[in-house]
Amino acid sequence: MKTGLTFDTVALDEKERALVIIDQTRLPNEEVLLHLKTQAEIIEAIYLLKVRGAPAIGVAAAYGIYLASLEIETEDYDVFLDAFRRASADLNAARPTAVNLSWALRRMEQVVTDHRECSISRIKELLRKEATEIREEDIRICRSIGEYGLSLVKKGDGLLTHCNAGQLATSRYGTATAPMYLGQEKGYAFHVYADETRPLLQGARLTAYELQKAGIDVTLICDNMASSVMKQGKIQAVFVGCDRVAMNGDAANKIGTSGVALLAKHYGIPFYGCAPSSTIDEKLTDGSQIPIEERPGEEISTMWYAKKMTADGVKTFNPAFDVTDHELISAIITENGIARAPFTESLPKMLKGTKGHDCS
Amino acid sequence: MKTGLTFDTVALDEKERALVIIDQTRLPNEEVLLHLKTQAEIIEAIYLLKVRGAPAIGVAAAYGIYLASLEIETEDYDVFLDAFRRASADLNAARPTAVNLSWALRRMEQVVTDHRECSISRIKELLRKEATEIREEDIRICRSIGEYGLSLVKKGDGLLTHCNAGQLATSRYGTATAPMYLGQEKGYAFHVYADETRPLLQGARLTAYELQKAGIDVTLICDNMASSVMKQGKIQAVFVGCDRVAMNGDAANKIGTSGVALLAKHYGIPFYGCAPSSTIDEKLTDGSQIPIEERPGEEISTMWYAKKMTADGVKTFNPAFDVTDHELISAIITENGIARAPFTESLPKMLKGTKGHDCS
Repeated sequence: MKTGLTFDTVALDEKERALVIIDQTRLPNEEVLLHLKTQAEIIEAIYLLKVRGAPAIGVAAAYGIYLASLEIETEDYDVFLDAFRRASADLNAARPTAVNLSWALRRMEQVVTDHRECSISRIKELLRKEATEIREEDIRICRSIGEYGLSLVKKGDGLLTHCNAGQLATSRYGTATAPMYLGQEKGYAFHVYADETRPLLQGARLTAYELQKAGIDVTLICDNMASSVMKQGKIQAVFVGCDRVAMNGDAANKIGTSGVALLAKHYGIPFYGCAPSSTIDEKLTDGSQIPIEERPGEEISTMWYAKKMTADGVKTFNPAFDVTDHELISAIITENGIARAPFTESLPKMLKGTKGHDCS
Repeated sequence: MKTGLTFDTVALDEKERALVIIDQTRLPNEEVLLHLKTQAEIIEAIYLLKVRGAPAIGVAAAYGIYLASLEIETEDYDVFLDAFRRASADLNAARPTAVNLSWALRRMEQVVTDHRECSISRIKELLRKEATEIREEDIRICRSIGEYGLSLVKKGDGLLTHCNAGQLATSRYGTATAPMYLGQEKGYAFHVYADETRPLLQGARLTAYELQKAGIDVTLICDNMASSVMKQGKIQAVFVGCDRVAMNGDAANKIGTSGVALLAKHYGIPFYGCAPSSTIDEKLTDGSQIPIEERPGEEISTMWYAKKMTADGVKTFNPAFDVTDHELISAIITENGIARAPFTESLPKMLKGTKGHDCS
C-alpha cells in the first residue's frame, strides 16, 4: 500500500535502469516523477532537495551508487573498487551534513569490499540487492515505529506534528506520520494538525499534502498557533521526527520542535520523538554536542514570496534545527521499542547490531 | 522626535485639509505617504489596512470624522449632528472589530453633543482640537509605557517582541517598542529579536523595518525560533502589546503570544504586556470571555506567495489572536504604572477617569 500517494518517494525502475523520485520541490502544486539515469542527475536531485529526508536520501544514494556501478565497465576488481569509491565520494558530497547519505554509501561499499572474491557482475547484483534491502528495511522500520506509536493513542485523538517526517522523507509511512497511516488503515479517525514549519514550509507543502492524499483529516496551522490549538483541547499527542538523539534523550529536530515540546508539557500533552535507531548517536552524551546548521537569511526574508518581505539590511538568524531537552520528551519511539526516562538506561536497549554480509 | 522614521504614522495636514498616513501595505519595500481628503478615501485606507494598529486607527478615525465634518455645510445644529452621525457610522463600519475605532468616534461625537450651544464653526474647531488631543494623548501614553518599561531592563539587554505593537501601530513610540525607542535615546544598546509573526508578517514587514530605521540592533526570526534564541541566553525580557486585558490579567494579543509567554516562563525570562489603560476591559473577569476572530485560510495558504503553498482542499485554522494566561505574565505595563499579580488588585488602580469637556 502506498499510503494515499500514487507513487513511491524513491524507487528503482530496473528495466529502465533509473532512479524514480517524486520532485518534492514542485509539490504540492505538481506531481512530477523524475527518472534519473546518470549519477550527475542523481547528485543534482539530492543537492536541490528534489529528494529529501534522511531515510529517503539514504535510499536514493544506495540506488544512485548501484546505477553508477553499472556504468563501470571492467572485470578487474581493483579498477572497479577505485571507480566505485570515486563515484561514492561524488554522491556523498551532494549533501555533506545528511548522516544517512554517507551511512548508506558506506554500507554499499561494504558489499564491494566484502565480496572481493565474486565476479564484478555478481557484485553489481549484490549492490542492487543491498540497495533494495536498505529501502525495505526503511519501510519495515517505519512500520514498526508506527505500530509502537499507535499503541500510545486512541481512536479519534487529535495529533500534532511539526515539519515533514512523513512518507516523503522516507520510503513509506514516514516516522512521525507512521502511527497516523497505520491508524488510518485501522479506522482510528485521527484529527491531525500540521505546523506549516517556517521557513521551508515542509508542513504546508508536504505533510498536509501527503496526509490529505491518504484521506486523513488534516488541518494546517501556522507554527505560532500550536499553543492555541493545544489550549482548546484539540491535541492528545504530539509526534515529531528526530534528526539525531543523544544518549541522555536530548533530541535534535527541525527548528521549532523544542518550542512545541514546551507547549505540550505545559498543556499536559504527551510528546513523542520518532527515531529509527540509526539516529541514536552513541558518541553523544547530551544534546549540547549536536552541531546546529545555520542557513541563509534569504529563506526568511525572500524565499517563496512574490516580493521581498523585509527592509534591505535587516539581519536574520536562521537555525535549521533545535535540540529538545530530554525532560520534555515523554518517549522516543524506535523500531525496536519505546524508550522512556531514564533514557540513559532505555536508549542503549534500542540499539541492535547490524547484520553481516556474504556472497549468497 | 520621530523615532527613526522620517514620517508620522498618522497626521493631519491642516493646510491641505488631508489625513496623511504611510501606506503600511506597501512597507517595507516602498515608503508611500497618502494624502486622504475624502471620507471615502479614509474608510478605504482603514478597511484595506493601509493604516492599522488600534491606537493609529483611533487617531485616523478622529481626524477622518473631523475632515468629514468640514464637508457638512450647514449652520443648523440638528442638521449638522444628523450628518455627523451618518458619517461616523460609515467610518465605524470600516473595521467593526477595532475597539479604538468606535471609541475615538464616540469621543468625537461627545464633543458635538457637549457643545450644542456653540456655533458650527466653533464645533468644527473643537473637533480638530479633540482629534489632535487624541493623537497627543496616544503619544503621551506610549511614552509613559516606554518609561515604565525601561525601568524593568538594563543596558545591553536582549529583548524579544511579537507582531507589531510599534510606532506604526500608534502615533509614536508604539507600546511594546516604546521601551526600545526610549532606551535608544538613552544609549541602552538593546539587541532586539523580532518574531516575523505569521501569517500577516507584521514582525518582518513592520517591526524589523521601523526598529532598523531608528538604528536599533534588530534581528528577524521565524516564530518557531524563539525557543532556540531564548535557550541560548540571548533574551532578558519579552515585550508585547495587548489587544484586550481582562480584570484577572488574562490578555489577548496577536496569535502566538501565548506560546511566547510559555517559552519565557520556562526559560525564566520576564514577560511584559504593554497596554494603554483603554485596553483594560472592566466588563471581563477573565480571558475566556474575549472573542477570538478567525480569519480566512488564504492568509496561510496563499497570501504573499508567488504561488499557492498548499494542495487544493487542505483545511486551515487561522485564529488571529490568542489569550495569554495571567499566570504567564510578569507584569502589565500601562501609562499609569506597572501592574503585577494579583492583577485583580493591581489592574483597577491602572484605570483613571476620563476628563470632561467644555466650550473653551
